[in-house]
Amino acid sequence: MNFMERQRKLRAGLTKSRLDWLVVSHLPNIHYLCGFTGSAGFLVVGESRSIFFSDSRYDTQAREEVKGGRIVIARTSVLQVLGEWIRKQSPGRSRIGIEADHMTVAERRRLADILPSRLKLTDAPPLIERQRMVKDFEELELIRNAVNLGADLFEQAVKGMRSGVLESEVAAEMEYAARRAGAEGMSFPTIIASGERSALPHGRATSNPVRANGFVVCDFGVILAGYCSDQTRTVWVGEISAEARRAYDAVREAQQAAIEAVRPGVSAGAVDNAARTVLRKAKLGRYFTHSTGHGVGLEVHEPPRVASGQQDLLEPGMVLTVEPGIYLPGQWGVRIEDMVLVTKSGHQVLTPTSKDLLVV
Amino acid sequence: MNFMERQRKLRAGLTKSRLDWLVVSHLPNIHYLCGFTGSAGFLVVGESRSIFFSDSRYDTQAREEVKGGRIVIARTSVLQVLGEWIRKQSPGRSRIGIEADHMTVAERRRLADILPSRLKLTDAPPLIERQRMVKDFEELELIRNAVNLGADLFEQAVKGMRSGVLESEVAAEMEYAARRAGAEGMSFPTIIASGERSALPHGRATSNPVRANGFVVCDFGVILAGYCSDQTRTVWVGEISAEARRAYDAVREAQQAAIEAVRPGVSAGAVDNAARTVLRKAKLGRYFTHSTGHGVGLEVHEPPRVASGQQDLLEPGMVLTVEPGIYLPGQWGVRIEDMVLVTKSGHQVLTPTSKDLLVV
Repeated sequence: MNFMERQRKLRAGLTKSRLDWLVVSHLPNIHYLCGFTGSAGFLVVGESRSIFFSDSRYDTQAREEVKGGRIVIARTSVLQVLGEWIRKQSPGRSRIGIEADHMTVAERRRLADILPSRLKLTDAPPLIERQRMVKDFEELELIRNAVNLGADLFEQAVKGMRSGVLESEVAAEMEYAARRAGAEGMSFPTIIASGERSALPHGRATSNPVRANGFVVCDFGVILAGYCSDQTRTVWVGEISAEARRAYDAVREAQQAAIEAVRPGVSAGAVDNAARTVLRKAKLGRYFTHSTGHGVGLEVHEPPRVASGQQDLLEPGMVLTVEPGIYLPGQWGVRIEDMVLVTKSGHQVLTPTSKDLLVV
Repeated sequence: MNFMERQRKLRAGLTKSRLDWLVVSHLPNIHYLCGFTGSAGFLVVGESRSIFFSDSRYDTQAREEVKGGRIVIARTSVLQVLGEWIRKQSPGRSRIGIEADHMTVAERRRLADILPSRLKLTDAPPLIERQRMVKDFEELELIRNAVNLGADLFEQAVKGMRSGVLESEVAAEMEYAARRAGAEGMSFPTIIASGERSALPHGRATSNPVRANGFVVCDFGVILAGYCSDQTRTVWVGEISAEARRAYDAVREAQQAAIEAVRPGVSAGAVDNAARTVLRKAKLGRYFTHSTGHGVGLEVHEPPRVASGQQDLLEPGMVLTVEPGIYLPGQWGVRIEDMVLVTKSGHQVLTPTSKDLLVV
């Protein structure tokens, strides 16, 4: 990964935002900028250098992983050491950006207590998140690998899908296969939601058995070499009714319409609207209770949001989920989700799995 | 779970702290107080009632899970709806507590922007964390179940431990068995750290093979019915040297000394000190680079911290880890960890696994 180049781009953003320092506290942002994958640390990015602060648990790991920055291992409170370091480096007035969405009220207060009044803490714009929206070549390779592994898991899972199998068994088999294939883990708790539970948009796998004559929503993803996949397929177990088939077809049509809306220059909101329009026409609009998608990369949910009214314009290199769904509480739900790459000429669907309705 | 009783206790704390409302944003605290297990929501606790706020994804789930409070599903921003609700309920001056350790700077600002000046946001003391430190009877049952499942996994894992097996394979087998046994997942990324990697206190399982003639640190835990386990055992693979055996024995002695220090009225710092004193005498003190332990419950790391200088006094019903370790960078590491319950008469070790050095 070209960490130096990423930091260089960020520095240009700092200058524009008139920030002397940025205290990066969001771990995926730290991972993106310097390669650290541990669970505690801060990266301070200044005009000409970066310093990574962590505690003694991460001494060796930081030395192995962190690129493009000095490492300071704090023997006392990390924020204390970080604050004192900035104070010493800044004899005059300075503006210090923080990540307001990723720093707690208590952390900010602790930092503010250490800094003299000439050093002003200020909420930084989401510079790193914006940078991360557009994936570079190496990231796209890693994302493709994660997506393909996810798709393989589903092919396996479908073989064991039948009425009576526990939702958690299906999830366990997928997670085990993911691990055996080298994944660090799953990108979120695996959703295997059958029967009435398919109407829960976030219906984690439970110890309930899969029921005959109903949908099973399978929403899952892996983390492979740091990058996430996210995919949903909905299968039917047993004898399908005409009504259920119509609902599935409507969601599929909505998903296809949203995918076709994906191209550079289009707003994320327009993609959402494409899906919503199809479902509205099918008189199913009020059952589509969430947004159409989100960015994916080092995090399974990251900007841009693909939701109603979102003004972010799509750019080549962005990777989005497109995942409309409908949910009839107490009855059933259907969701279909692919990962889609924005290309110069339009889009490319990364998820290779068929979307034909599978009745098992 | 007796959610009403938990909320009643919390209300007594609110009154003492002169808070009219507490905005609970930490999800494990929300789970503890009202049973909600989803990934987005806020619980507002007032003098005589509680209100749970979430978004449409959690509509059905909230209705199934939330006890002891009304449910409001926001169609716009959850914090916006929550702030407006509090404003309407509070015609006069009010003090509104927030969880400063679990609310972001941006969330606080969004909430503050909605509230008129007569409603003052203030950092609440960690009332719920303090309450959660002492487990009730039902929680202890669930914790015992989680600990026993974790121990069973280790017995299985040891059977497959030999030089050449991949760290990630060992982890995958444990995680698979956990899932099959009904666990929701692991309580943290499984650590299987062999050879030089055993010297990394947080050495997640990698695709490296387990090396002959070295330690393998196995640190893992499950989440079962919401409650976490956390356990470490260190095994030796191959021919063991006298020096390695001495180091293992020293850590075991330190761990035993810390366990024996556990009883009501003793400070958490004294438990840490008991372990540290043994390792210092063995001239290994400077390799013990982390604290001795932490509370465990709905979270795998929760108060109290069992660390140098910590003044929290132990009480019956607290559940702690006791996990001293030593780490020689580039060489090897050893850690031994049990979960320990503070009882009226002293302590009870919950983790049933033998601590005799296993050489495989």
